[in-house]
This record gives sequence, C-alpha cells and structure tokens, in this order.
Amino acid sequence: MIRIAVDVYGGDNAPDCVLDGALEAMREMPDIHVIFCGAQEEVRKLLAGRPHDEARVRIIDAPDVITNHESPTLAIRRKLNASLVKTMDAVKAGEADAAVTAGSTGAALAGGIFRIGRIRGINRPALAPLLPTAAGKPVMLIDCGANVDCKPEYLVQFALMGQAYMRGVMGVDKPKVGLLNIGAEDEKGNDLAKSTFPLLRDHPLVDFYGNVEARDALTGCVQVIVCDGFAGNILLKSTEGAAQLILGKLKDGLLSSTRSKVGALLVKPALKGLKNELDYEQYGGAALLGVTGAVVKAHGSSKAHAYACAIRQARTMVEGKVVDIIAGQLSAAAGDAAK
Amino acid sequence: MIRIAVDVYGGDNAPDCVLDGALEAMREMPDIHVIFCGAQEEVRKLLAGRPHDEARVRIIDAPDVITNHESPTLAIRRKLNASLVKTMDAVKAGEADAAVTAGSTGAALAGGIFRIGRIRGINRPALAPLLPTAAGKPVMLIDCGANVDCKPEYLVQFALMGQAYMRGVMGVDKPKVGLLNIGAEDEKGNDLAKSTFPLLRDHPLVDFYGNVEARDALTGCVQVIVCDGFAGNILLKSTEGAAQLILGKLKDGLLSSTRSKVGALLVKPALKGLKNELDYEQYGGAALLGVTGAVVKAHGSSKAHAYACAIRQARTMVEGKVVDIIAGQLSAAAGDAAK
Repeated sequence: MIRIAVDVYGGDNAPDCVLDGALEAMREMPDIHVIFCGAQEEVRKLLAGRPHDEARVRIIDAPDVITNHESPTLAIRRKLNASLVKTMDAVKAGEADAAVTAGSTGAALAGGIFRIGRIRGINRPALAPLLPTAAGKPVMLIDCGANVDCKPEYLVQFALMGQAYMRGVMGVDKPKVGLLNIGAEDEKGNDLAKSTFPLLRDHPLVDFYGNVEARDALTGCVQVIVCDGFAGNILLKSTEGAAQLILGKLKDGLLSSTRSKVGALLVKPALKGLKNELDYEQYGGAALLGVTGAVVKAHGSSKAHAYACAIRQARTMVEGKVVDIIAGQLSAAAGDAAK
Repeated sequence: MIRIAVDVYGGDNAPDCVLDGALEAMREMPDIHVIFCGAQEEVRKLLAGRPHDEARVRIIDAPDVITNHESPTLAIRRKLNASLVKTMDAVKAGEADAAVTAGSTGAALAGGIFRIGRIRGINRPALAPLLPTAAGKPVMLIDCGANVDCKPEYLVQFALMGQAYMRGVMGVDKPKVGLLNIGAEDEKGNDLAKSTFPLLRDHPLVDFYGNVEARDALTGCVQVIVCDGFAGNILLKSTEGAAQLILGKLKDGLLSSTRSKVGALLVKPALKGLKNELDYEQYGGAALLGVTGAVVKAHGSSKAHAYACAIRQARTMVEGKVVDIIAGQLSAAAGDAAK
C-alpha cells in the first residue's frame, strides 16, 4: 500500500479535476490510497457524486487556499490550514508516502523545504520535469525554476539527484549527465558553467557526458541535463512555445485549402501519434528532488488525466526509493570528499 | 552604391556557397558592390566559372583562415591576413559599408570589436538574430551568445540597440522591448533580471513591455527581447531543437502508413508554407550591434541563399543607418543621465 497525499486546491482546474484524476489513478493502481487535503465538507460532497473505493480514501481537513498572488514563503509559514501545507505535513508526519500538488511552483518548493525538509547534504532542492526526446526515452531537466541563481556545487547535487531519479524511477541503468551550455566544447560557457564543468567531470559518482547545447537537449544523447533554474526554465518554456507555434501554424496550413483539408483527414492518425509522443504529461509533473519525501509538482493547467499521471509518478518515486538513493549518494559523496 | 565586404572563408560551405550567395545578392540588388576577402587567385578562379558583373566586384587578398579551433581574440590579433580580419578592416578603412561573415561567433565578435571598434557608450556589442513569431512579424533576440555574463546596464544598451534595428531595418514604428524572464510578474527572476527590470521600466527612451516568458517569446507580443547571451542562446537553440524534433517526428508519422503517405502528398504545399514561415534564414543572419559598422554574422551552416539573405540584411542595415541611430540614442541616453 502506497499512500499519496493530494492537494485538492492546487492548479487552475481544482478541485474537480484533482478528484477525477485521483480516482482515475486509484482505478489504475489498486495498491494506492489517496489522502485528500481540502475542506472536509466540500471534498465529501465531491466524492459523493463519484463512485470510488471508500476504504482507500481519507480526507484531511484543510480549508485554506494558497493563491499565486501571495508570497509563497510567508503563506507556507502562516496558513497552516492551507491544502498545500497539510499535503506536505502528511508526508512529514508519516501519514502519507508522497505528496502531489499543482499549486504555484514557489509554494510547492517552500512547502517541500519548510514543511518536509531537505535531505542532509542538499543545499537546494530542485524541480525536475521529464521531456520527450527524438530517441524516444525522456530526458530529465534539473533545475527548471526552483533556483534561479546557483553555485557550481548546487549543479553537482542536481546531477546526483537526477541520476538517482532516472535509475530509481525510469529504470535507466547508467544515466549520463550533460551540462546545459552554449557550446559543446569543454571551455565554453558563462562563469557558472565554466566552474561547474570540472566538478562534474571529476566527480566519482557522476557519469558525465560533457556540455550539451540547447539544440541537442531533446536528442536523447543524455538522460539528465543540469543547469540553473533560470536557464532550465528558458529551455523548458521555449520548447513549449516553439511546439505551440509550430503546431498552431501546422493547423492553419492544413485548414488553408480544400486539398489540404482532405489530406489532413488522412494524416490525422499520424498527427495524433505525434501529439502523444510530444505530450510530456504522460511522465507526470516535475519531481521536487532534494526533500525527504516524494513530492510531485503537477502543471498548473493539469486536467484529470495529468493529475492521474502525477500520482502514478509519485507512486513510482516511492517504490523506486528515490529519496533513499539520493541520501545515500550524498553521504557517499561526502565520504569521498572527506577521504 | 552600397559596398559589402564578404568573408570568403567563413562557414561550413565556404568558399563556393559564399560566392554563389554573393552573386545571387548582386543579381537581386543592382545597387550593391561586393568586396570578396579571400586568397586572390582562388577567388579569381571561382569567379571565372560564374557569370557576374565585373565592374561591381573587387577582391582583397586575404589568404589566411581563422578556424573554429583557435582562440578568436588571439587569431584576430595575429592573423592579419585572415579573410575575416580583412573583411572587418575594409569597413574600418571606409572601403566597405558593411561586413558579412559566417565565421565562428567568437571570431566575428572579436573582429567587430578589435578591428572595427565599439560605438561610444556601448560596453558590449551583441549578436541579435530575428526569429519568426505566431503574429507573422519577426522578433529580435538580443543578446544570443556574445556576452554570456552580463551587467544590468548592458541589457539596457541591448534594448536601445534592438529598438534602433527594428525601427531602421524592419520599419517598426514603436518597437516594444520585453525582458526575458521566468515569469511575467514584475518581481520575478534571477539577480540580473531583477536588477534590470527597473532600469528598463524607468528609461525614457525604452518602450518597455515588461517581463516575457520564454513560452511567449515567439508570440509576437514584443519586437525586441533582451537577455544575457547565455539565456538568449538557450532560447534560440532550444527553439531550433524543438522545431527539429517536431518536424522530424511529423515526417516519420506521415511516412508511417499508406493512408498517411497519400495524405502527406495532399498536405505537402501546406507543409512547405509552414517550413517557409518558420525559416528564419529569410531575415539573414544575426546582426552584430554596437560596433561602428554594419556587421552581419551569417549562420555557420549557411548555403548560398542564406548568404544572399545576410547580404541583403547588411545592405538594409546601411540604408537604415542603424549605426548612426544607435550612436544617437546612446548620446541622448548619456545626455539624459547627465541632466
């Protein structure tokens, strides 16, 4: 049995899609229990209209909501009855094995750090989504927005955490780590990249590939890409933006003439396959790595199925013992350093 | 008459495509003269096999080549007979009005700075390509790789230079400037973005839009996006990478079944239109802004037509008096600051 705490009020489509997604996940995975953190009465009502296995559901009363418009750190400290706080607290207290929220990135991060706590040896927990690649298997991007100004040693920790995730959750035997950079040559980069390169190259626990240009990030040449959260966010969102632009123009083009409309009907299944391949919802949300619990930050615009995927991901993080592996690697790294 | 100096040895497809591109440009624009900087004998031979108007062609003997594998700064200082150096020197000496090279970014930048010189008041010249947008009109990204570590005042100068280009070359009446950031809210960002925001907001000559997320960079909401060269390079290249990934998977999908192959034939014209719309070769290369001459850095992989586009762009930079406008804005800004 794996117990997943779910933030009922996080995201644009809460609470309905959260409930629907959680129940979808329960149907798919018979070994999970869901702990809904939200206003008890409201959650009860919402559940009443939806068939579900009552024995595998619990509610933790959490009537408050943290909005995108307040300071995440202050909100996490003051709104102790907020759904996101209660979700994290359930993990801290050992009532849940994992937490899933689609609340704001800042609040999810602050919640993970201040309510659950960091793994010993980790300076900065990081947000790490998976992206689709040309090779088929996904690549982890760490960090993608939690830490906008980084020191080289943070990036080394990101590398260790990313490797642990790809091994434990994605079953990759020897995940390769690339450093996001503006050129493939060893000496390229800004101050941060240049200082980080030798640390990654010489680290006994990191399987370092070298620099990776943004152009090659989605080729599948590495399984983990490390970068500061500013650069990672630019990479993540410009990929999204380019995809939107291209698919939008493609649609316009296909609807522009009778000939192309007929053709569009014929290529529809192929286009649907393309959309599925590019859809990174299937991998869940962004893992919050570096805290002493499995936490998944789902996309703010998640619909029910995306929530279900995020819950599946949280379950796999628990099963893959990601937190333990990270903690183990960090203490091994500390041991090496002490030698 | 506008005289364009062309680096015969820059880029992967030199010298043949350089020659072909330059002659294509001469056919298209009867008012340009081309000064080929390369080994005199070789250029003569290459020209002999290609019909052209001899009266509009000159050769400057420049037998040396700067490769991608040497230090750009050292090469620029030592290889005084290199094609790239002679190209820049022609502008400095007033023999040419503009320079076009597809040599390495570092060498083009060093050449512009050390052989031509910076505009008074500009700390760091910047590389600025144009990208296609959903709105149809392109957006300028400045800087995209020349300056990987920036101070806030550099980004303000990028904004002034970008505006000058979009007005002078692209004919945009009031170009809006956005600051590349990880969120749209005013207070978002890393240290650099947070320090730059108020400078752009309060600048009397900058038409500031606010922060722009990478996801929205290609929507067309602004005409100039300013950022440090590291972030700009990530944005530029991840857009390229995403486009490659999507168009590659699209092609695979279209060839995956007989049904989709038939459809593909019907949608071919529409797809070709898409490819043209996304093709930023049409806008030329990246302008090197902030030096006292019109310099265009063409993509290293440019084929003949891309060179022709880069030459057209260089011509428009001369005609649009981009250098004068930038110099004028900088002294106006300095005057404002002195008040």
